[in-house]
Amino acid sequence: MQLNAPLDMHLHLRDGEMLENIAKTSAHTFSGAIIMPNLVPPVTTKEAVVAYKDRIIKAIGDEKFTPYMTLFFNPSYDKTFLSSVRDEITAIKLYPAGITTNSEGGVSGFDVEELRPALEAMSELNIPLCVHGETNGFVMDREAEFASIYERLATAFPKLTIIMEHITTKTSVDLLDRFENLYATITIHHLLITLDDVAGGMLKPHLFCKPIAKRPEDRDALLKVALEAHPKVMFGSDSAPHPQHAKESCGCAAGVFTAPIALQLLAELFDTHGSSVEKLQAFVSGNAQTIYGVTPLNKTITLEKKPFKVPSNYKGVVPIYADEEIAYSITNVSI
Amino acid sequence: MQLNAPLDMHLHLRDGEMLENIAKTSAHTFSGAIIMPNLVPPVTTKEAVVAYKDRIIKAIGDEKFTPYMTLFFNPSYDKTFLSSVRDEITAIKLYPAGITTNSEGGVSGFDVEELRPALEAMSELNIPLCVHGETNGFVMDREAEFASIYERLATAFPKLTIIMEHITTKTSVDLLDRFENLYATITIHHLLITLDDVAGGMLKPHLFCKPIAKRPEDRDALLKVALEAHPKVMFGSDSAPHPQHAKESCGCAAGVFTAPIALQLLAELFDTHGSSVEKLQAFVSGNAQTIYGVTPLNKTITLEKKPFKVPSNYKGVVPIYADEEIAYSITNVSI
Repeated sequence: MQLNAPLDMHLHLRDGEMLENIAKTSAHTFSGAIIMPNLVPPVTTKEAVVAYKDRIIKAIGDEKFTPYMTLFFNPSYDKTFLSSVRDEITAIKLYPAGITTNSEGGVSGFDVEELRPALEAMSELNIPLCVHGETNGFVMDREAEFASIYERLATAFPKLTIIMEHITTKTSVDLLDRFENLYATITIHHLLITLDDVAGGMLKPHLFCKPIAKRPEDRDALLKVALEAHPKVMFGSDSAPHPQHAKESCGCAAGVFTAPIALQLLAELFDTHGSSVEKLQAFVSGNAQTIYGVTPLNKTITLEKKPFKVPSNYKGVVPIYADEEIAYSITNVSI
Repeated sequence: MQLNAPLDMHLHLRDGEMLENIAKTSAHTFSGAIIMPNLVPPVTTKEAVVAYKDRIIKAIGDEKFTPYMTLFFNPSYDKTFLSSVRDEITAIKLYPAGITTNSEGGVSGFDVEELRPALEAMSELNIPLCVHGETNGFVMDREAEFASIYERLATAFPKLTIIMEHITTKTSVDLLDRFENLYATITIHHLLITLDDVAGGMLKPHLFCKPIAKRPEDRDALLKVALEAHPKVMFGSDSAPHPQHAKESCGCAAGVFTAPIALQLLAELFDTHGSSVEKLQAFVSGNAQTIYGVTPLNKTITLEKKPFKVPSNYKGVVPIYADEEIAYSITNVSI
């Protein structure tokens, strides 16, 4: 099986030592990725975007890979500022305040009039808005409760491309066909696991993420649109590395590290469910190219149905399925 | 505030070194407890019950405390066997197979006719049946799905006292008033936490237990019957010690260790919600005396509204709210 120019439309590369340790795990096998801006402090200026991109380029060394940069949304962004930064960014990421790792500076209310100047400027400049869509409600309800906010934003800003990031519920899937300007990314782990895998047997910190994995019927809804490569969905790993001690402790940080084996797992998933390479190609690259209007670097990944033992860690970061065997291996990367 | 003869109607004391390390944390402040039989191998013979009781008595040293012993249910138990062991046990605990710690030898189907000989003998000998009521379904649905099995058992064996152990759902609460012979224990942690506390912020392994903490409306239903000391509910901590390394690792064992601070937390809870000492007395002792027909040892626990810093661990076992301050302290224990 060959995949051309795979794209990861939602990726956390972190910064500093972690960036240097894990950047190549994505850069080796993907042509590019949307890079999340939730650093400390968050990426909110042109200078910060450019400097972060430079650090990423340095960290990936001689790998061929495009970091599609983003800003951390702030309602104060105006057209002058956004015009000045337009060439440096591919999207802007909106976090509700306090909802996930380093999101303290996010949006608290979703008052359309308060958001209008920034979101209309984004519409005019054709900058997609990526949204972490969760409320502060009960953990299993947070995403479904956010649906009304997606509806409000999609209606108020019909020309704004709104990407529902890492969707986990049937409720979000159902929005795709109701609003022309709503799109979604889906992670590999939310296609594979439910809350049962996180907390149904032993508690598994390395499968703990936000949004938390949901019910079987939610996963089924996600699988349906991913396997058919619904034109409004794209692969976005939300791969989110934390040091092992931050995951295996009395308070475990949210995030699943999937980047190094995401393509292998996707190949296995699409194969297991009888979907085609063409559908996987669309899910992992084609749809994103259309939605974002990007033309990725050439890179061809050859995958074979050959067991791969997942390493116990990548420089101190424990991946999903650590020490387990998965069915597909990457046997060649050509540029 | 004074509590007389508090009883913990669901307690895991384990065995060996763990038993020796933690037995006194219950034996000091409770008059007695129903001791769970899920050892390796499970407690299924008169000899095993007697020997386990002896080890418990040895472990509690000079504390005054009654271990109310139980057998691990097996459908092969007949009246001859049960008559021979009747004087050594207070109840029999039924585990569905594979549902919690050391439950591999439990019941797989719930065929009434298969269970009839054992359960009718228990009815005749007036031995209560304690049940861990969960199916193997989706983690948030397991207890509610088990309701139909409770209904079937309660109907088929109307003279059998059936205790729904550590209930966590409104569904189970609703069964109490529908079936005369159904009773329940409720833990302190299920009165305090929901899934939000386990997985809504950081993932908290020390709050991970089976059944898993449920939704806010479930906790509200539990609180209602506990605070009013509904005559069919009793306190049962399900305090379940695991070594720290078994909780803070890449696969965390289920169980919350609450025994040393259960009474302090109950005092705070009933106080916070404006319930009375009389209701707490009934919840933590009186109801159990009536339901089980036991007369506990005299022991008077004096509690005062005075901050108590919970230790970080008790001989390597991390308790709920480790290193946090709770509002009530035990200031005297008199016998």
